[in-house]
Amino acid sequence: MRDLILKLHKINAIKFGEFKLKSGIISTIYIDLRVTISYPEVLKMVAEAMWDKISDLNFDILCGVPYTALPFATVMSAEHNKPMVMRRKEVKDYETRKAIEGYFEAGQNCLIIEDLITSGSSVFETIEPLEHEGLKITDIVVLVDREQGGKKHIEDKGYNLHSVLTISQVLETLETEGKLDKEMAIKVKEFIKSNQV
Amino acid sequence: MRDLILKLHKINAIKFGEFKLKSGIISTIYIDLRVTISYPEVLKMVAEAMWDKISDLNFDILCGVPYTALPFATVMSAEHNKPMVMRRKEVKDYETRKAIEGYFEAGQNCLIIEDLITSGSSVFETIEPLEHEGLKITDIVVLVDREQGGKKHIEDKGYNLHSVLTISQVLETLETEGKLDKEMAIKVKEFIKSNQV
Repeated sequence: MRDLILKLHKINAIKFGEFKLKSGIISTIYIDLRVTISYPEVLKMVAEAMWDKISDLNFDILCGVPYTALPFATVMSAEHNKPMVMRRKEVKDYETRKAIEGYFEAGQNCLIIEDLITSGSSVFETIEPLEHEGLKITDIVVLVDREQGGKKHIEDKGYNLHSVLTISQVLETLETEGKLDKEMAIKVKEFIKSNQV
Repeated sequence: MRDLILKLHKINAIKFGEFKLKSGIISTIYIDLRVTISYPEVLKMVAEAMWDKISDLNFDILCGVPYTALPFATVMSAEHNKPMVMRRKEVKDYETRKAIEGYFEAGQNCLIIEDLITSGSSVFETIEPLEHEGLKITDIVVLVDREQGGKKHIEDKGYNLHSVLTISQVLETLETEGKLDKEMAIKVKEFIKSNQV
């Protein structure tokens, strides 16, 4: 995972400093995995690392959480010939409008692909319409677990979360590789610890 | 292209019958390429056919028109190591908010990927914010040209349109292969001719 972490840091998908979040809180770490679309080699590394994490599981189709995880899911689907469905984010009333794009059958097992877990709320927003259509969800794979409580939320509801990377692992690797000084690493760890959801 | 056309017909991406469009008009042909996400082999065939059409052109990055063309662009990007950017469809005011996701530099040549051309308006909606950011657009590749006037609109504005398939070609192939009867083929041709935009 060392190589992947260094690449994500190099392309500025993981940054350190002072970042004002929507909530007004100042975060010392900023993770934006959307930029991976501009680095196809990194995108493929991400998709492969995620695939390796779940290749032993039993599932029929993939569904990426919109929007950042959609390219991850697309590459996994194309590389491994696994059908995909997409949740339409703009469809709120999934009782009356088609909320899921693509072909699927009720009863199929659907694996959820997500880029980043904080609280897990985006994952639940995607799971809900899929289960409403009769798809079975047991597992979620995520590239980075921010370790702010999302894993527990997800597991409390009976789903399994598989994370390729955790924030702790990212910080440790970047510190060892001289990409992050000790002081900042401590600040980030404190931020994570005091911002549990 | 025969194989690709037959596959698209088989997965119901191209259907014949009576379909009420948003405008209220009844169309005898319905093309919905979103379903390709559930058939990764077809998705890859589509991406390869599109790539073959433009591989001689000079471009630095790709941009898919949201949403249907995004998986096409993602597979082309991953397979051929070409960076991608994404236009955020929900950002209308691109003067003040970030309308383009991903890393790019002003002056780069950007190829536009689209699934289906009718009038060309979705293509222009994507071109506008890209040009506003200083990207150069000269070429657009589309999977299916509905031959309803979009090609002329695009070329009148000075862009080149490269289409993998035209409706005429689709109809001819499906008729030859016994997937479409003569009567319906005539109806579709009449619909196309009398619904120029």
